[in-house]
Amino acid sequence: MQLGVCYYPEHWPPSGWADDAQRMRAMGISWVRIAEFAWSRIEPSPGVFDWAWLDEAIETLHAQGLKVVMCTPTATPPKWLVDTMPDMLAIDAHGQPRGFGSRRHYCFSHAGYRAESRRISRAVAERYGQHPAVAAWQTDNEYGCHDTVLSYSAAAKAGFRRWLQARYGDIAALNTAWGTVFWSMEYRSFDQIDAPVGTVTEAHPAHRLDWRRFASDEVRAFNREQVEILRELSPARPVSHNFMGFFTEFDHHDVAADLDIATWDSYPLGFTQNFFLSADEKARYARVGHPDIPGFHHDLYRGMCASTRADAPAHGRWWVMEQQPGPVNWASWNTAPHDGMVRLWSWQAFAHGAEVVSYFRWRQAPFAQEQMHTGLHRPDRSVDQGGVEAAQVGAELQALSTQMDLNAQGIVNRVALVFDYDSLWMAQIQPQGADYNPLELQFRVYSALRQLGLDVDIVSPNAALAGYALIVLPVQLHASAALVKALTQAAAAGAQIVLGPRAGAKTEVLAIPENLAPGALSALAGVQVLRVASLPPGVQAVIRFEGDAGSVATAQRWREDLALTGAQAEALFDDDGRAAVTRLGSLRYVAGWLDADGWRQLLMRAATDAGLSPQPLPADLRVSRIGGLLLACNFSDRTLAYTPTSTPSSSSAAPLLGSATLAPRGIALWHLN
Amino acid sequence: MQLGVCYYPEHWPPSGWADDAQRMRAMGISWVRIAEFAWSRIEPSPGVFDWAWLDEAIETLHAQGLKVVMCTPTATPPKWLVDTMPDMLAIDAHGQPRGFGSRRHYCFSHAGYRAESRRISRAVAERYGQHPAVAAWQTDNEYGCHDTVLSYSAAAKAGFRRWLQARYGDIAALNTAWGTVFWSMEYRSFDQIDAPVGTVTEAHPAHRLDWRRFASDEVRAFNREQVEILRELSPARPVSHNFMGFFTEFDHHDVAADLDIATWDSYPLGFTQNFFLSADEKARYARVGHPDIPGFHHDLYRGMCASTRADAPAHGRWWVMEQQPGPVNWASWNTAPHDGMVRLWSWQAFAHGAEVVSYFRWRQAPFAQEQMHTGLHRPDRSVDQGGVEAAQVGAELQALSTQMDLNAQGIVNRVALVFDYDSLWMAQIQPQGADYNPLELQFRVYSALRQLGLDVDIVSPNAALAGYALIVLPVQLHASAALVKALTQAAAAGAQIVLGPRAGAKTEVLAIPENLAPGALSALAGVQVLRVASLPPGVQAVIRFEGDAGSVATAQRWREDLALTGAQAEALFDDDGRAAVTRLGSLRYVAGWLDADGWRQLLMRAATDAGLSPQPLPADLRVSRIGGLLLACNFSDRTLAYTPTSTPSSSSAAPLLGSATLAPRGIALWHLN
Amino acid sequence: MQLGVCYYPEHWPPSGWADDAQRMRAMGISWVRIAEFAWSRIEPSPGVFDWAWLDEAIETLHAQGLKVVMCTPTATPPKWLVDTMPDMLAIDAHGQPRGFGSRRHYCFSHAGYRAESRRISRAVAERYGQHPAVAAWQTDNEYGCHDTVLSYSAAAKAGFRRWLQARYGDIAALNTAWGTVFWSMEYRSFDQIDAPVGTVTEAHPAHRLDWRRFASDEVRAFNREQVEILRELSPARPVSHNFMGFFTEFDHHDVAADLDIATWDSYPLGFTQNFFLSADEKARYARVGHPDIPGFHHDLYRGMCASTRADAPAHGRWWVMEQQPGPVNWASWNTAPHDGMVRLWSWQAFAHGAEVVSYFRWRQAPFAQEQMHTGLHRPDRSVDQGGVEAAQVGAELQALSTQMDLNAQGIVNRVALVFDYDSLWMAQIQPQGADYNPLELQFRVYSALRQLGLDVDIVSPNAALAGYALIVLPVQLHASAALVKALTQAAAAGAQIVLGPRAGAKTEVLAIPENLAPGALSALAGVQVLRVASLPPGVQAVIRFEGDAGSVATAQRWREDLALTGAQAEALFDDDGRAAVTRLGSLRYVAGWLDADGWRQLLMRAATDAGLSPQPLPADLRVSRIGGLLLACNFSDRTLAYTPTSTPSSSSAAPLLGSATLAPRGIALWHLN
Repeated sequence: MQLGVCYYPEHWPPSGWADDAQRMRAMGISWVRIAEFAWSRIEPSPGVFDWAWLDEAIETLHAQGLKVVMCTPTATPPKWLVDTMPDMLAIDAHGQPRGFGSRRHYCFSHAGYRAESRRISRAVAERYGQHPAVAAWQTDNEYGCHDTVLSYSAAAKAGFRRWLQARYGDIAALNTAWGTVFWSMEYRSFDQIDAPVGTVTEAHPAHRLDWRRFASDEVRAFNREQVEILRELSPARPVSHNFMGFFTEFDHHDVAADLDIATWDSYPLGFTQNFFLSADEKARYARVGHPDIPGFHHDLYRGMCASTRADAPAHGRWWVMEQQPGPVNWASWNTAPHDGMVRLWSWQAFAHGAEVVSYFRWRQAPFAQEQMHTGLHRPDRSVDQGGVEAAQVGAELQALSTQMDLNAQGIVNRVALVFDYDSLWMAQIQPQGADYNPLELQFRVYSALRQLGLDVDIVSPNAALAGYALIVLPVQLHASAALVKALTQAAAAGAQIVLGPRAGAKTEVLAIPENLAPGALSALAGVQVLRVASLPPGVQAVIRFEGDAGSVATAQRWREDLALTGAQAEALFDDDGRAAVTRLGSLRYVAGWLDADGWRQLLMRAATDAGLSPQPLPADLRVSRIGGLLLACNFSDRTLAYTPTSTPSSSSAAPLLGSATLAPRGIALWHLN
Repeated sequence: MQLGVCYYPEHWPPSGWADDAQRMRAMGISWVRIAEFAWSRIEPSPGVFDWAWLDEAIETLHAQGLKVVMCTPTATPPKWLVDTMPDMLAIDAHGQPRGFGSRRHYCFSHAGYRAESRRISRAVAERYGQHPAVAAWQTDNEYGCHDTVLSYSAAAKAGFRRWLQARYGDIAALNTAWGTVFWSMEYRSFDQIDAPVGTVTEAHPAHRLDWRRFASDEVRAFNREQVEILRELSPARPVSHNFMGFFTEFDHHDVAADLDIATWDSYPLGFTQNFFLSADEKARYARVGHPDIPGFHHDLYRGMCASTRADAPAHGRWWVMEQQPGPVNWASWNTAPHDGMVRLWSWQAFAHGAEVVSYFRWRQAPFAQEQMHTGLHRPDRSVDQGGVEAAQVGAELQALSTQMDLNAQGIVNRVALVFDYDSLWMAQIQPQGADYNPLELQFRVYSALRQLGLDVDIVSPNAALAGYALIVLPVQLHASAALVKALTQAAAAGAQIVLGPRAGAKTEVLAIPENLAPGALSALAGVQVLRVASLPPGVQAVIRFEGDAGSVATAQRWREDLALTGAQAEALFDDDGRAAVTRLGSLRYVAGWLDADGWRQLLMRAATDAGLSPQPLPADLRVSRIGGLLLACNFSDRTLAYTPTSTPSSSSAAPLLGSATLAPRGIALWHLN
Repeated sequence: MQLGVCYYPEHWPPSGWADDAQRMRAMGISWVRIAEFAWSRIEPSPGVFDWAWLDEAIETLHAQGLKVVMCTPTATPPKWLVDTMPDMLAIDAHGQPRGFGSRRHYCFSHAGYRAESRRISRAVAERYGQHPAVAAWQTDNEYGCHDTVLSYSAAAKAGFRRWLQARYGDIAALNTAWGTVFWSMEYRSFDQIDAPVGTVTEAHPAHRLDWRRFASDEVRAFNREQVEILRELSPARPVSHNFMGFFTEFDHHDVAADLDIATWDSYPLGFTQNFFLSADEKARYARVGHPDIPGFHHDLYRGMCASTRADAPAHGRWWVMEQQPGPVNWASWNTAPHDGMVRLWSWQAFAHGAEVVSYFRWRQAPFAQEQMHTGLHRPDRSVDQGGVEAAQVGAELQALSTQMDLNAQGIVNRVALVFDYDSLWMAQIQPQGADYNPLELQFRVYSALRQLGLDVDIVSPNAALAGYALIVLPVQLHASAALVKALTQAAAAGAQIVLGPRAGAKTEVLAIPENLAPGALSALAGVQVLRVASLPPGVQAVIRFEGDAGSVATAQRWREDLALTGAQAEALFDDDGRAAVTRLGSLRYVAGWLDADGWRQLLMRAATDAGLSPQPLPADLRVSRIGGLLLACNFSDRTLAYTPTSTPSSSSAAPLLGSATLAPRGIALWHLN
């Protein structure tokens, strides 16, 4: 558990660098990420490098014992490079180049830019790969930010054709797999296939899905080229990339497979305003963020660099690379966190297993696009509230580390939530209802689990599932044979399994399975989906759980008509008496988009059956366990009392931090052993 | 009264075709539409035809006695054709081609594609024109779907210039007619005139109107070329085209004038979600559809192939070519019909005079864009609910046909609703208020008539009007001399006439008449419009009908200030005492966009004056009469009692189908003679 | 105080011109604006002029003693000119030309069109510059209408580079000023700089700001070229331009500096529907317009041609060039004014100092884009309600002018509201919250002042501020050294000053000041802004004013955390006790976007401190003073009683017009001396 910060020496006079470094040290900061946007300073003219300033900056940090996360600067190619090869720019869906003047203005598929990416990565790695201060690397910055995964360039089109040829072998196979006979869309050669854009009405769904898979593979290939250079020239330093929140444009499990550490950029307030939350939630959580936004991503990215081997550690290395320190500049509304939230978020991240929490940024820049983005300090070098709280966390870590080995805390969670990018893409391509947002569904199910006090691993569909007592798959439109096998084994071993709506509803090529949904999961689920319907706003279906007269919820947005082929109904739709939730052995299938209460009831049952002792928490309280530690976070405006039930009486009266009566936005940390 | 189905043999293994055909027969199906999207299978390479599979499919259907509706496949030109002549693609308003990869990717004005359209139509017609199974034709598919009427191509621009030259003769005449002097828009030659797109602010309204007229004429010319080939090579087989719902982008009366049968594609639930209904209506009718959506289009398309001669039949031949069988895939929300609705819709269509109700589609396709569109069967060949209900209708038809000649039922309606595409375009070009949707107005007035239990003919402004007791013109912005004459004669003969707001407000070139609105209708109406105003949301004007203290309604969206030049006020605006509804002889003029209650009150008066005995029906009940039959449809969730007042006592106790106590979504069919 | 009208002889047969002129005279009209859209009639073919019709039109008007405002016709270049130089068209943000077919289809930066502008202006001025009827000029028409200030043409890009070079001298200075080091956006030469458009995410704010400044300068340069020609060829005639409402795309103070008279086009109902008012306000004011829309613009444009010298008159010459006469055609909803509103608006304009109120237009055109825009007459030559009321105003002016010299009425206002286009642009570029609309804030503060019965001068930030008792700066993101000096002097002289949120928050290049906000105003304000936050809908912060327990309001949309560095709190945020309003000496700083009640309370305090005796008016009543006259306008539906407190008893019982009991939409005019 260490602190870090993002620092831009090129934005400030060198005269202040040493003071900055001293103050970082004093604040308890160990890591400093630098240089991810500094290409124009590193190489001001083609082939002319200016290392002096960066040498000095690194030495200054090193002199204070700070460890550097060095970056490749490929997210911001300079103007002279764009002018040299204008077709390196990504092309938007309307055929327009996405120009210079901000960032991420490159096409992942452009061979020329790929060569430049390798050249500049090699140059930086050669310079600093063996530097004693450089203890880790970051490739590029926030792949895909500003909708930059997809490019409709000539390079991308050519790459896509090669990708299709490699995948399908011959064009007849593609025609059969996609079903191009529908609407006479048959191709006679791969060279006839364009990007799925600009069509009169929606393009073919399999075409769209493969285009997204191809684009995701391009991101992975781009990243891997840098990783290989860094591993060659800077051995033993871990390589990371900083992922984003609520972002699914490429398969992060794939990209992370080439990394040592997954990091992410945590902006709870910005995400609360910019995503799918209701207007009421946006107002209610304006200054604290939705309580589950940080945890959802912590748990997701903790699963990224995990091995998928059953005999390997279940969790990967991960950091928060950018932690929101105050108001940001990019949300629809940029609210200010309540005092205490930066500390709370920092501890919450550690309690989910973060190795490092790194704040973005050391000091608010007074110029350019992000001048309204706060930092730990204001532009005039004064300490901002985020800095005050970061220092507090630094001091708390220091104090605690004298009592225990904070890095020795392991995680053994019993609940797995499967997160499958491919299935998310399928549902995004074919929502069938305007508000069927699969990422929201994934989040709402996670939130329900967390409201029950459960710790959750968010895992790849290829993850080893043995050992989990409860496995939830809210958005599993396609289940591979391997996943079916893993679930079958888990069920046989007694694990409880919950399949969300549309599970198994699609084949690998986004078609309907021959045996209808849930396709390959049919035998496990014991149901067949006869019909699906999306429900417009204002339409909902009442659901009653069996054996509990008062247990009522609703389905909104989506419902299915099931035939029971082995399963039994556990909840019924009130209007037609059809099954809303079924059960076959330890597997439940959910035939609708449940409301929050419905998910809580359902998961309460499943978790109880799994022997997990779920306990509904007070509203806006969350708890997280790491090793012998338990952290409670109060996101509410009220004082809340909480005592861990598993706390031995000897220690229950004495949290390590805070108190069992949690102030608004307060935390309490217990040692459970 | 026969059933049909849309079938795609090319989507399924030939081994299953015979079974399909047998099951069609067993279900009571007589007609099978095929091949409208099969170009790439018919002609897989340029000039290389593969007829074998289609021969076999037709023979298989023929062997079961099924009649085939053969189609020209021009809605989906194959990729090799597009690659040969890329400029055949339509061009969108931003100058971008509308590319290959879905359907309808052609420009109606492109001479090269027009030649291809004739070539492939001739090829298909030569092959199957004389085949004994081929009993009818369909040209292309859903002209205009996905906004494909308008194309801003070079071909369209050139065609438009020729069209203008033919219409106006010399450029001075055009300048005068349009009024180009306003803003110095005068042209010196037809070659200076571009498409009315890309202008700094709105383009000239007359320019826009003529562009739409030209585009409509292009659709007609395209269609006529195919019709002529089919008539030459397949004589005595009727030629049809399948029109759409709530679609006004070309003049359907014009196109239908070249056809033998008008058909349309009836998707009540999709239309309910995607069009102008309120959020409350979308929720209320989510699973039954608005009760008047089917009837509105049935009555509209029944008027399409009607003769305009007074001595000819008042109704044209028409079918439902595609009947919704379950949830579709293309609406904002794709709801499931309640059980019984497919049967109800089928009977409703017959009760409006449909010759054939043809379901779309025989079996849900498991792949491509429409894989979430249900059929009579599921992709696994099992019968879906739509199939169950279609079979029920088939059996009911069979049983009834033993009691009477179902095809001998004539229609003699006394109410005409005039539907004028040209006037709709005028109001769309010049709404003058953001929610002045003339198609909605047309629909709302139709709905009010139907809620009064009246059967309605929706007719062209060129239709023979003699014989109608009540003639309603909700959106008659321009009245031709012929229409004025017909109305004058009808009024003289005692018909009641109702003119909606803005009647006669525009000349042929979308200008204000010299004598102001209602222009050519002024003498008939006895009013002059001094001023019009659109009303923003939240503003409404109370209206009181004369002689009935309790009779209050409101105008919303639109009101007019009238001078009475012969007419008398029948209703007054409460705030200023001006006339809201006037009457001169048997003609009423309505000076506002009335609410639903206002239209019902007004039309109750007019229908009563016309001697029609209107009877307000229970909410969501509708009745339709065809010959001696009367069908009642219960679209509500409640049981409703209904007895036709015109039923002789001898038969009133015994409906042919159903009972006088209609279950929710139930029907009852009486024989009135 | 005179009346005028906009007239288009080219739209009507010459046979009617003389009658029109006679009726103008009879209606009390003195001024007639003509020919601003007549280029295609003046020069029907390149270089071929047809003056005859215009000569005749002018003579006809002259014969009736009418004075002509002659226009340059550059807003509507004819088609032949566009065909000659197609690149004269402006280019939109997507790179598409903005084509011929409406108006304003030119790029301000195009050298070829600039030459044409001078050529046609010279031709018209040579013809009519010395004509005795031509008593004033108007350049072009409504610069910027339909978003035409910005053009992304090659000409504009080249001009921008020159402009930047002139402003910054060398590229290093630009890089430093803008802060291009952020995201490696550094330039090596001015030739590398493009328009700030098409970037992947938002373009650099300083880049965007300079682009807007450049575009504004182009408008000024374009206008000045015409002005110079007119001054040369038509000496002693004042030159004007007609500005628009709620329009900030160029710096009007700059353009007006080259004019003699500022005019504007007043459409209160259209502006009410199309701008930022709430849905409730749009409904409530549908037929009268928001009471402060006319006054806000009257006071703004009165300040346009004012000198900025302290020893010069504080007010400039101004007219209403286009006064709404009835419903218009271009708003989302085009409502009809209540009877009496045209008279009310006319008198309101005079009471704010208008020299001339000129109605748009004499007669409604029956054709083209504006055929639904009413005039004083209907298309059939009958008098419309607007004409009736204009005649009434004409008669009232005539009667009053026998009692006093209406033109001798001076204005001496004590309240200044600073309106700074540069600051508005800054807030528009960097709103930091989706609803931070600086123009709305400016308007809401003005409205609060007017509800307190105060007369307001809206002034340039360069205006002489001495003499004002109260100076309000709602949107002063950047304060120049000159403004800081002027405010310092005014404060020293005892003036009350109110700074709105974000005052001084930006430097000249849209960066954060070194000493943080309020930057150069820090010493005056005695506060430092530590943090800002935008507030999403549903979030508001309660504010309590000190010393008045019942005085509560809220901040919405925006709040700031202040450190007090000399100031004292006058109001506190309820939740955290921080200062919401501060005071240092006579200067108040407002740390939030106050609700209407908050602004009224705050300004009541400041105005009282300024010795201005503010008096809250009944809702929807407004009063305006000009010289010895006081006008009260009742915008409500209720009868309202009002008596000027400053009216001597001798005259209080006898208004010159109307009565102290104002009917709905009524006015009363008192003589106060």
